Amino acid sequence: MANNEDQFKKVISHAKEYGYIFGSSEIYDGLSAVYDYGQNGVELKKNIREYWWRSMVYMHQNIVGLDAAILMHPTTWKASGHVDAFNDPLIDNKDSKKRFRADVLIEDYAEKIHQKAQKEIDKAKKRFGESFDEAQFVATNDRVVRYKKEQKEILERMARSLEAEDLADVKALIEELGIADPDTGSKNWTDVRQFNLMFGTKLGASAESATDLYLRPETAQGIFVNFLNVQKSGRMKIPFGIAQTGKAFRNEIVARQFIFRMREFEQMEMQFFVKPGEEMKWYEYWKETRLNWHHSLGLGKENYRFHDHEKLAHYANAAADIEFNFPFGFKELEGIHSRTDFDLKAHEEFSGKKLQFFDHETNKNYTPYVVETSIGLDRMFLAVMSNSLEEETLEDGSTRTVLKLPSILAPVKAAVLPLVKKDGLPEIAEKIIEDLKWDYNVTYDEKDAVGRRYRRQDANGTPFCITVDHQTKEDNTVTIRYRDSMEQERIAIEDIASKMEETISFKKWLS
Amino acid sequence: MANNEDQFKKVISHAKEYGYIFGSSEIYDGLSAVYDYGQNGVELKKNIREYWWRSMVYMHQNIVGLDAAILMHPTTWKASGHVDAFNDPLIDNKDSKKRFRADVLIEDYAEKIHQKAQKEIDKAKKRFGESFDEAQFVATNDRVVRYKKEQKEILERMARSLEAEDLADVKALIEELGIADPDTGSKNWTDVRQFNLMFGTKLGASAESATDLYLRPETAQGIFVNFLNVQKSGRMKIPFGIAQTGKAFRNEIVARQFIFRMREFEQMEMQFFVKPGEEMKWYEYWKETRLNWHHSLGLGKENYRFHDHEKLAHYANAAADIEFNFPFGFKELEGIHSRTDFDLKAHEEFSGKKLQFFDHETNKNYTPYVVETSIGLDRMFLAVMSNSLEEETLEDGSTRTVLKLPSILAPVKAAVLPLVKKDGLPEIAEKIIEDLKWDYNVTYDEKDAVGRRYRRQDANGTPFCITVDHQTKEDNTVTIRYRDSMEQERIAIEDIASKMEETISFKKWLS
Repeated sequence: MANNEDQFKKVISHAKEYGYIFGSSEIYDGLSAVYDYGQNGVELKKNIREYWWRSMVYMHQNIVGLDAAILMHPTTWKASGHVDAFNDPLIDNKDSKKRFRADVLIEDYAEKIHQKAQKEIDKAKKRFGESFDEAQFVATNDRVVRYKKEQKEILERMARSLEAEDLADVKALIEELGIADPDTGSKNWTDVRQFNLMFGTKLGASAESATDLYLRPETAQGIFVNFLNVQKSGRMKIPFGIAQTGKAFRNEIVARQFIFRMREFEQMEMQFFVKPGEEMKWYEYWKETRLNWHHSLGLGKENYRFHDHEKLAHYANAAADIEFNFPFGFKELEGIHSRTDFDLKAHEEFSGKKLQFFDHETNKNYTPYVVETSIGLDRMFLAVMSNSLEEETLEDGSTRTVLKLPSILAPVKAAVLPLVKKDGLPEIAEKIIEDLKWDYNVTYDEKDAVGRRYRRQDANGTPFCITVDHQTKEDNTVTIRYRDSMEQERIAIEDIASKMEETISFKKWLS
Repeated sequence: MANNEDQFKKVISHAKEYGYIFGSSEIYDGLSAVYDYGQNGVELKKNIREYWWRSMVYMHQNIVGLDAAILMHPTTWKASGHVDAFNDPLIDNKDSKKRFRADVLIEDYAEKIHQKAQKEIDKAKKRFGESFDEAQFVATNDRVVRYKKEQKEILERMARSLEAEDLADVKALIEELGIADPDTGSKNWTDVRQFNLMFGTKLGASAESATDLYLRPETAQGIFVNFLNVQKSGRMKIPFGIAQTGKAFRNEIVARQFIFRMREFEQMEMQFFVKPGEEMKWYEYWKETRLNWHHSLGLGKENYRFHDHEKLAHYANAAADIEFNFPFGFKELEGIHSRTDFDLKAHEEFSGKKLQFFDHETNKNYTPYVVETSIGLDRMFLAVMSNSLEEETLEDGSTRTVLKLPSILAPVKAAVLPLVKKDGLPEIAEKIIEDLKWDYNVTYDEKDAVGRRYRRQDANGTPFCITVDHQTKEDNTVTIRYRDSMEQERIAIEDIASKMEETISFKKWLS
């Protein structure tokens, strides 16, 4: 995988060309940081969701599902802390009227200093060749030392000011550094203010008092408020988990990197309720279990790494990200968080209802601790898609574009192709589809030469092509062609389904 | 099925007790007309969605899927007519500060008159017994004639005034009839005003101008704006369809009847693009195809009927509902609409982009006509759930509560039960689950006597119980018990999966 901007651009244009992802409301020139999934995208997304769901709910006897609504009682977000603390520090440029995240402006400035240092290092590396000792150079070269120091001081001061909610100093820092609006060069800034990231709406229930609601910024709270409903009606015993997939919304000011950070996105979250004191054991268990799940898809173990959080959120006593090697570098794909009893306790306080578990062994009630696994479905989509897209140079020197999606996730599992559009071959192809369609999403293609159709299916991510030719009429065999190896094999029509099942089954992939 | 209020109450309480449906944010005393789906509900909902998806997308080579975002460019809703015309006429009571739908107040009043007439008819029926000629009585009894006439006049005047947007006359009608706030008796009304049903929100992209967005009130428009994206990238030829499932939101003032009319709900829609002039053929095709889909689930053909619309929406040239016999009577479950080229033309006009199909046979462009099938997933859930819940009296005079869900839709497919919690039986049960879990959502239950566990699974809707007993250790056989017949059979462990597959496969149900 080419790990760079170029590869990223290819992924974005391939996603559009092959019906994976379109910009939302494109005919109206789009809605920023919102995307629509096309005919292939919807299937890939469904398949990722199902792969996660089965691994969580079907594979674990003590995990069940939930589907809570997007709209929730507004006190939920008071209790969770989102009303008071789910903010970004924003600053407006008075001349351009553009709005920016103050921390991003400063980070971008610091990044430029970092790049200056990097330039010096690269220059020296070039000059000294193999004998170059980078560590020594970085520690002793005056300019590099100065750059590194400056970068560090800026970022530390910003972190301190944000932590202390000293927004005046954040503004002062921007002015001291002489940071300008990147588009217009204007340095005429407003004060920095906190801006809540939740989308608000109004429920018009009565004349006087429309209720202020929020679109949920995360799915987790739907699980916490239903903790007792599920535990009691499902007769669940601790430890047990509740899994949920669904949309969440964040009014991001700086929404970047395609579907990596969107305003409307889908989460796959599981909250695991444990006995207080046992949370670290389960935290380790879920870190390992989730990493294994990622590895099961075969995108390359080297593309994942853990990032343990040093600074923890107010609700957590341990937290780690599983980072993936996206085309723009290693970034968070999934989070595993030991959330303590923060959420259940907060909802107890705000609702006045007990959210506890009665332990029959000790005859005592307690508030469970929670270990959460939280993955962005759209990020997972991007990880799979960007890792799978390849430009291969073949033996004859020609190239092919191939989307090597894990077959269990591929939108279309097989294309059935009559070699020619006559002699009864299309009818045989249709009959094969009639047999396969109960279990697989399959497609028919009769247009263009068969070689071109193979290439089209390669780019589409279809793992199998099944070709019906004149020999098929004689002996009921077809050619099955494999996307990744391009190898072909002659098999009986009646063996197609079992041949596909060998490769495409949850048992094969998840065990 | 007991077709009445009592049955409806049972369904609602059963749905909560068995983890199908909870009120949203219950610990905060709920959010009106919003519901959460519990551990069984989420599976039933998933299974209905998948049953629809497969029947649409996998079974039809010329239908593909889509997953458009909930947030869309606001001009979408200008073009679709929702900004200007998606309104309810509301009236506020000045004393109670309560808000009402003016048309519902009048309809409720007319319904009371209708009930008075019905009372007279019932009385006469009782008096005259079998010899009673109802038609003659209705036509000749003075009081009944008067009631019927009055009811008719009220409803006709209301319809005329709403049609002409003469809201002053709607208010005048309420005052003339002396309609009072049902809770307080006050007749002190405000004027009638139109109230848009879309939930609004703001996208805070720049300092000066936050963009006003809407939560989509229907999923269909996401298909129309992507018509060309899908047609081109998917190389689709007319006729073809685009299918989509997803959330939609309506700020209903009167939201009633449990999950039948919710503020947040899920739609399953398919837009079928056809050549102008062929729409009536396809309209008839989809009416029949959709009715067959409903019949395939075996809820009883007598529980469905068509209701052809006499008054058509502004975009339609033919429309029919498939009504289902809910506990509160026959009501709309699905709509099939011939929408003409209204939507594509409107988006052409507002976006300035051509949304046409190029016909290679005639070398001409045209704007396709659209036939839509639109079903509420939550309504389908309610149809299945209310039709399946039964209180059966058994031969021995005892009763059992059983949820006879179609097995293809049942949340949990099998419960594996060790007869006792010892002698190695739990371990054998666990091993059976290990084999089944790759293909089915299965559960383990060891608590209470086996008869009680059977009853619990009956009420839960689980089609199969598999019991492991001491004989299992000798000959590797188990007892399989069928939910609906309560019959039991001794089968080999290795035959369990195939026994289940006989009943639970898309091929069996959809063909």
